[in-house]
Amino acid sequence: MSLENSIETIAKAARQASRKMSVCSTMKKNEVLEVIAEKLIEKKDHIQTENKKDLEYGREKGLSNAMIDRLTLSDKVINSMVQGLKEVAQLVDPVGTIKDSCVRPNGLQVSRVRIPLGVIGIIYESRPNVTIDAAGLCLKAGNAIVLRGGSEAYHSNMALAELIHNALESCGLPGEAVQYIPTRDREAVKIMLAQEENIDLIIPRGGESLIRFVVQNSTIPVLKHYKGVCHVYVDEGADLSMSENICFNAKVQRPGVCNAMETMLVHQSIASTFLPAMTRHFMDAKVELRGCEKTCQIVPEAKPAASDDWGAEFLDLILAVKIVDSMEAAIAHIDQYSSNHTEVIVTSDYSRAMKFVREVDSSVVLVNASTRFNDGGQLGLGTEIGISTSKLHAFGPMGAEELTGTKFIVLGDGQIRE
Amino acid sequence: MSLENSIETIAKAARQASRKMSVCSTMKKNEVLEVIAEKLIEKKDHIQTENKKDLEYGREKGLSNAMIDRLTLSDKVINSMVQGLKEVAQLVDPVGTIKDSCVRPNGLQVSRVRIPLGVIGIIYESRPNVTIDAAGLCLKAGNAIVLRGGSEAYHSNMALAELIHNALESCGLPGEAVQYIPTRDREAVKIMLAQEENIDLIIPRGGESLIRFVVQNSTIPVLKHYKGVCHVYVDEGADLSMSENICFNAKVQRPGVCNAMETMLVHQSIASTFLPAMTRHFMDAKVELRGCEKTCQIVPEAKPAASDDWGAEFLDLILAVKIVDSMEAAIAHIDQYSSNHTEVIVTSDYSRAMKFVREVDSSVVLVNASTRFNDGGQLGLGTEIGISTSKLHAFGPMGAEELTGTKFIVLGDGQIRE
Repeated sequence: MSLENSIETIAKAARQASRKMSVCSTMKKNEVLEVIAEKLIEKKDHIQTENKKDLEYGREKGLSNAMIDRLTLSDKVINSMVQGLKEVAQLVDPVGTIKDSCVRPNGLQVSRVRIPLGVIGIIYESRPNVTIDAAGLCLKAGNAIVLRGGSEAYHSNMALAELIHNALESCGLPGEAVQYIPTRDREAVKIMLAQEENIDLIIPRGGESLIRFVVQNSTIPVLKHYKGVCHVYVDEGADLSMSENICFNAKVQRPGVCNAMETMLVHQSIASTFLPAMTRHFMDAKVELRGCEKTCQIVPEAKPAASDDWGAEFLDLILAVKIVDSMEAAIAHIDQYSSNHTEVIVTSDYSRAMKFVREVDSSVVLVNASTRFNDGGQLGLGTEIGISTSKLHAFGPMGAEELTGTKFIVLGDGQIRE
Repeated sequence: MSLENSIETIAKAARQASRKMSVCSTMKKNEVLEVIAEKLIEKKDHIQTENKKDLEYGREKGLSNAMIDRLTLSDKVINSMVQGLKEVAQLVDPVGTIKDSCVRPNGLQVSRVRIPLGVIGIIYESRPNVTIDAAGLCLKAGNAIVLRGGSEAYHSNMALAELIHNALESCGLPGEAVQYIPTRDREAVKIMLAQEENIDLIIPRGGESLIRFVVQNSTIPVLKHYKGVCHVYVDEGADLSMSENICFNAKVQRPGVCNAMETMLVHQSIASTFLPAMTRHFMDAKVELRGCEKTCQIVPEAKPAASDDWGAEFLDLILAVKIVDSMEAAIAHIDQYSSNHTEVIVTSDYSRAMKFVREVDSSVVLVNASTRFNDGGQLGLGTEIGISTSKLHAFGPMGAEELTGTKFIVLGDGQIRE
């Protein structure tokens, strides 16, 4: 069978399986999640043996230590997959809940009811745990799923996908509800992105180049997250100790993630009091500061920022710092450089807080709290499959509900249109 | 300026204008809609003069009478645009309403608030009234809009777009919030579909080939409606008089629209009583019947259906009729041939009604009511910009709310992540 035919066959089988998943009870879906978790513990040795093949191949290929680290299915990573599945099983099932309803003047009862999206394609890079995490959340929302992971995680992903397949069948559900595209051939991704008839949504997870490739080549809708360039603006009159705590937490608590602060904007009227104290904290944590001209005058520890430091996603202990004349200047800077991910204002002023949350065009806009709260768990969605930085369908963290859509159900007693 | 640069300039100006529209008050937006309506009445002669140029060009080009009819901005069509704007002004403004909210254990107040999508691109064919109708609804939801209509309506569309531009400016809003791509060059559509940075959503309105072209060439998300192949299933034990009324209304009331019935499925146990009476009604209304083998045995007036009559969008007084053994067979037929638009069951049986609405995968699923109710106005959305047949973001009629997204607003008092 050609690659094209074999991927089409996979997508068609997923569509068929999605019909059964869409009417599957919450109890049955939770049972599958529990069985996958059990099998992960039971088959740990087998999974780690398969994972070793990938690790050896990766070392031969000269992958960086960070890449090898992401690829490794240690006991800890497997336990966290197990834990994740148990958490997803605890979540409320969005399917069948009513979004809104009304009774029309002619007596028609109109409801918009949550339904699964259908078949979700996930295209991801080196972390094989995505296979379990993504499949778990998609299944909870009643979807089927077609997975395509990075070629360096081939053996690990195949072993995990087989395990899910067996778990589904042992619960009397179609194993084809979760399928892995069993080839390292890059062409497979392009073919997958053309299965518009049988795949309803593509979620790419990985670096910006992967995501751009997916967007360029897909005729299927894509929910994407390019990058996180998060700003904190410290306003005139802000509580300085609160500002220090929030900025420190936003930059230092976990610098390598998308919701870490990358640029700090400081109102000029407080710069000379706030920045020296803040800088001492940052220096203790070995944060490199790259400042605008005025910042460098106040903070001798700061290097002059280059023009491409504004809007950069450092993902590291590096911070761009700019002094602004006004909140309007801060909003204009954010408008120019942000990635529409997460922005914060620290302020004591009611009107400026309201104006900031109204005007800033990002998926999560916070007043007096750390950027690090842009996270499905932290915002009350349970777990998440990613953070969307475009506005259609979902903007911000995507939980189980964001993996559903709605349909109209209309109950009548003979109504016709006049 | 090259075509590419000029379209990029338009899209960038729309993005700028969208920032102002997104924070515009409901009162101001309604004022603009009223002013557009006033100007339509005031400038009627000018618009009709421009429209005549298109009509002359269309006749020279040999457009069909149906096409010329769609192109004509008669007094009646202009009045209906005026009326439409007034109705949109009456609608509830979705922007700023809260979709859901919660307080987290750490005291963070998390709300999901409706925001405009940003810049919406509309690509449409011959009806110039879409210029006003689409712009009105998009503006109400706080969006900017880039329009590209059919080349045969060029002069009409340019005149209408200029009128909207002037109305916006006279209300102190940016005229660039509604722009028309001022060229007949087909290449312009491709360039428009690549403005991912500055256009957030594309809505194509027109025939299937236009929509396929847009989906193939767009890196921007597309909300689309391919076609409406609507089914009515008349169940065993259904009220026969109600079934006749619903099927007659669904087929005959307005056969040329996407929510008209195209295939009628009849349970075998009632076929011999239901079909002869139903056929008499259809014959009175000059409906051509194309039946399955069993149907033709009962209904001598029916022609044998060809295989491509199943799933055909006739948009005419033609109906495919099939006798099925069971509701499961009806659902399987729908699953194979429907366009996920609208399906109806006529039944007296509670469990079968519930099963049908649960299992049928269409944007609107009705019990005991006509297919013709799949319409934004009829379902309580006010007016609509189209009917989406794919599930992401919106499935079914799209009103003002479907032209918005949500962002998270998080109010804290110093929370950081531990």
